[in-house]
Amino acid sequence: MKLKKMKQVNIKPNMTVNELLIEMKEGGFTCRKVALATDIFEEMINDKECKTFLGLAGALVPGGMRKILKIMIDQELVDCIVTTGANISHDLMETSGGSHYHGREDINDMKLKEMEVSRIFSTLVPYDAFAKFETLAQKVLETIPNRQMSTREFIYELGKHIDDRDSFVRAAYEKNIPIFSPSFADSMLGVQSWLFSQTTPLNINVLRDHSEFTEIIYESNKIGALFLGGGVPKHFIMNGSQLHNGLSYAIQITMDRPEHGGVSGASVKEAISWGKVASGAKWINIMADVTLVLPLLISGILSRV
Amino acid sequence: MKLKKMKQVNIKPNMTVNELLIEMKEGGFTCRKVALATDIFEEMINDKECKTFLGLAGALVPGGMRKILKIMIDQELVDCIVTTGANISHDLMETSGGSHYHGREDINDMKLKEMEVSRIFSTLVPYDAFAKFETLAQKVLETIPNRQMSTREFIYELGKHIDDRDSFVRAAYEKNIPIFSPSFADSMLGVQSWLFSQTTPLNINVLRDHSEFTEIIYESNKIGALFLGGGVPKHFIMNGSQLHNGLSYAIQITMDRPEHGGVSGASVKEAISWGKVASGAKWINIMADVTLVLPLLISGILSRV
Amino acid sequence: MKLKKMKQVNIKPNMTVNELLIEMKEGGFTCRKVALATDIFEEMINDKECKTFLGLAGALVPGGMRKILKIMIDQELVDCIVTTGANISHDLMETSGGSHYHGREDINDMKLKEMEVSRIFSTLVPYDAFAKFETLAQKVLETIPNRQMSTREFIYELGKHIDDRDSFVRAAYEKNIPIFSPSFADSMLGVQSWLFSQTTPLNINVLRDHSEFTEIIYESNKIGALFLGGGVPKHFIMNGSQLHNGLSYAIQITMDRPEHGGVSGASVKEAISWGKVASGAKWINIMADVTLVLPLLISGILSRV
Amino acid sequence: MKLKKMKQVNIKPNMTVNELLIEMKEGGFTCRKVALATDIFEEMINDKECKTFLGLAGALVPGGMRKILKIMIDQELVDCIVTTGANISHDLMETSGGSHYHGREDINDMKLKEMEVSRIFSTLVPYDAFAKFETLAQKVLETIPNRQMSTREFIYELGKHIDDRDSFVRAAYEKNIPIFSPSFADSMLGVQSWLFSQTTPLNINVLRDHSEFTEIIYESNKIGALFLGGGVPKHFIMNGSQLHNGLSYAIQITMDRPEHGGVSGASVKEAISWGKVASGAKWINIMADVTLVLPLLISGILSRV
Repeated sequence: MKLKKMKQVNIKPNMTVNELLIEMKEGGFTCRKVALATDIFEEMINDKECKTFLGLAGALVPGGMRKILKIMIDQELVDCIVTTGANISHDLMETSGGSHYHGREDINDMKLKEMEVSRIFSTLVPYDAFAKFETLAQKVLETIPNRQMSTREFIYELGKHIDDRDSFVRAAYEKNIPIFSPSFADSMLGVQSWLFSQTTPLNINVLRDHSEFTEIIYESNKIGALFLGGGVPKHFIMNGSQLHNGLSYAIQITMDRPEHGGVSGASVKEAISWGKVASGAKWINIMADVTLVLPLLISGILSRV
Repeated sequence: MKLKKMKQVNIKPNMTVNELLIEMKEGGFTCRKVALATDIFEEMINDKECKTFLGLAGALVPGGMRKILKIMIDQELVDCIVTTGANISHDLMETSGGSHYHGREDINDMKLKEMEVSRIFSTLVPYDAFAKFETLAQKVLETIPNRQMSTREFIYELGKHIDDRDSFVRAAYEKNIPIFSPSFADSMLGVQSWLFSQTTPLNINVLRDHSEFTEIIYESNKIGALFLGGGVPKHFIMNGSQLHNGLSYAIQITMDRPEHGGVSGASVKEAISWGKVASGAKWINIMADVTLVLPLLISGILSRV
Repeated sequence: MKLKKMKQVNIKPNMTVNELLIEMKEGGFTCRKVALATDIFEEMINDKECKTFLGLAGALVPGGMRKILKIMIDQELVDCIVTTGANISHDLMETSGGSHYHGREDINDMKLKEMEVSRIFSTLVPYDAFAKFETLAQKVLETIPNRQMSTREFIYELGKHIDDRDSFVRAAYEKNIPIFSPSFADSMLGVQSWLFSQTTPLNINVLRDHSEFTEIIYESNKIGALFLGGGVPKHFIMNGSQLHNGLSYAIQITMDRPEHGGVSGASVKEAISWGKVASGAKWINIMADVTLVLPLLISGILSRV
Repeated sequence: MKLKKMKQVNIKPNMTVNELLIEMKEGGFTCRKVALATDIFEEMINDKECKTFLGLAGALVPGGMRKILKIMIDQELVDCIVTTGANISHDLMETSGGSHYHGREDINDMKLKEMEVSRIFSTLVPYDAFAKFETLAQKVLETIPNRQMSTREFIYELGKHIDDRDSFVRAAYEKNIPIFSPSFADSMLGVQSWLFSQTTPLNINVLRDHSEFTEIIYESNKIGALFLGGGVPKHFIMNGSQLHNGLSYAIQITMDRPEHGGVSGASVKEAISWGKVASGAKWINIMADVTLVLPLLISGILSRV
């Protein structure tokens, strides 16, 4: 095993983010991992043979990542997205005029309730933002065709009728990048869909997601993934990757830990035993908040591609 | 604010678990929290007016919790369960004769792959356990009626045809305790359901879960919850609790942290701002692995009820 | 690699803690690790050739562990202790009549300051408890001989003049179990020692700790360690173990994680590369709060030895 | 409470780090906290009345932070440093020609031991690097005057005789920025000091640190702190701040969590109850690896001052 000396991270005034990422490769621990992840992601998206899957979990829009997700889609950095229903819901919430607000995690929650403001750690969402979302959701649901569809098609149809240049769901529709959300029923969008379906037929069959996703997997020569958080998106993508001899590239960014056996915090390495990650894959685990790493990662990537 | 002195935890040889839990109330930090959680859970299940919801996330069967879940159901400690598909799948895996095995988290994953063994942190699952599960799943799916149903009804029908005294899904069927799994599509059971549906109609409408769950909520005078891990189960139960002025009791056991804004690690306290936990509720967050706390908690409870 | 089937954890009413620990070996993840740690600790203390070192970090007395530490010393479960100064300080605080109180971590800290109460997460300490500690400390420091000494000898002398049957520092003195605290200067005891030394000579040479500790190491045929938290105690013990071909037994209980490279969260396994843990050692990492695991562990051990 | 809308983070190709930090204020969670911390740090160092204390814990040099620490000192961004002995030791190790190397955390530790390479998570240190350090340490210790001194004076004297432009200990000497290390005995430097003292008198009195540190505190109109990790450095600085009505600014960057009551993971907010942080202070907790945040933070600061 040949050892490569660590030069230590050097910084200068007015460095670009990409220059910093290159320097960060000369550090250790999470510093170096973020730099290596940028290289792996660059290689993955430059690999013409490789289809890049993006797993989205966690509160990414309340975390400020909405524009970055849109940029990733506009720049076609990813080919297929699997997300929790929350990310779709919060994207539509912003479209509806309901915003997210800066806050602190130590605010008195009973006071917030009196003020009709919900807290997502240090982000605040006024109750009326939910009301605006609900109004928009009911309006857009009117446009959904009455035929059995996967969540992928459902979200595509939603995107078709979202009139908002800042919406990443809209952007995915425009770029024809499929978004799957097999667990969408557990989200504000899911609740609105259910309410809507009480009076108007809505025919979403989550099992169809497997048909369509499997097809995408089979069409790919190689597959790679960027997991932002874990949850259903990570598990769903990993499940599909088993059909393909495993991911050739895998980047995982999460704050979850592995010791209780949950899939969200499981090391990517463990997935090798399942055949979900190929033995020779380029992979990396980063133990950090997505909201801290993603701006760095995408900022670096934009400078490279 | 009147202060109560900490007496410090005293231990004696041959203490019962319940005696230890009572002593642990005289400690601090997680020690005391587990003791307090036992008291809250005791109060919740003794509260005749209160319906107790159980959220199951994480790898509970690979973590050894299968028998304990069954005991909780047999003893009717809970009234309604919301789970990820994984817990159902791994319960059925055991029914099918496919077992989980003791392992270590530092085993070489490539060697495991060659040996056809999957790793879930320190637990191992041979590939043939999945094969056994798949065979059983296809067999049981044959019995599912061809009509539109919620996941609750689907799992009830599965339970009807599971011939295994150790299965907690079977036990829930026998006790008529509903199990919801709105995200079941993302699980081995979901994949088997999809495969089955390629040749035989299977009509599971996840949005129906909202109808049935809401009814259960509305029927309840008071509601309380024990969250084992977070994820979809926690979010789904919390979403329902908003319709009810909030949970009167809430116990959360997770290793997830709150700083990245995800719902799994969010403090129960935050839910007060949403109206998901009542202002005067008895609630507690325990930062620990469910597999360490649940045996203590239920062992203590069995001695009390 | 021969695989051993997981039987799943069974619980019964009125189980003893030791019965539960034995059952917990049939679970996974942290559940099983606590059971295995109990076995390893049992083997270590029964191993007549092995000297057992105990590392104490974190807020163990505010966590309610004071009596348990005393029991461990009274029962001679350990041969040598390395601790932060905080644990000595809080032990003496209790001796002085200054107590720790039950609290919550969400109490308003500015209110607490007005009430003259300090918060250690969910434990509260009134300012007058510190005042009582300071009075006692100055009194006991009067008895310290004026000669150059290690922290080990300093704490022994303190113990000689503590008149409190509940003090673990006193118990260690009575049992002649050495306590080292090379970082004691950074503690309330260290501050009191400094104040005292402004008028009366106090001659503590922390480097002498190495002489005495190394001697204990060299006298031992085998060495083993139980690390409660990490910090200076873990590092100091590990440093000594390098002189001995490494620990034959190592149990680590911490909530710290390894990804940022700190020694506190480092896996015991990493220490193998340093020669600090022997290649064939029996070792285990438990990711949990000491205050939750220690009562279980020692309760089980008391039933076994 | 007036709410400020979150604009979401926008990124562009070739952004500077400082531009990204400004954008990151429009995100949430850790993203926004890093941006706010940069503002607080900027305000703290621009505040002529305020003395800035830097707490250094964790494996910062194996994490690649050596050059950045030197830059912080050269640019006089801090006025006083408290560190674990490890950071001094690893700085001197680099001076001695013993380097740190890039590695992975999943390398076989027994293989590493055979190769005579130690592992610090994903960083590797060959045994001969320790040997080089030991040689240099013994050489430099020869120059230490034989009089009683604090660790501050000891490290100053070490710095005087380090001939290395890249050493941050040397840089602190040149800039006359005091470095305290009350727990230095527990470090490679401490071991070398002890070995040296077996034949040549070495008279380091850790209690003197309190005298000198208290003086610095008393000389200051206002005090502020940046805590990189927790441990002894954080506790020592916080202890001093109590003498001053508390820190006016406090930034904490750590991966440690608060639930087990340890000081390292304790929220800065808790310190308000102790009077260690002033009621009106500007403070923030960032849950992240220092090696990821520090390059961003200092890179941003260099562009601002």
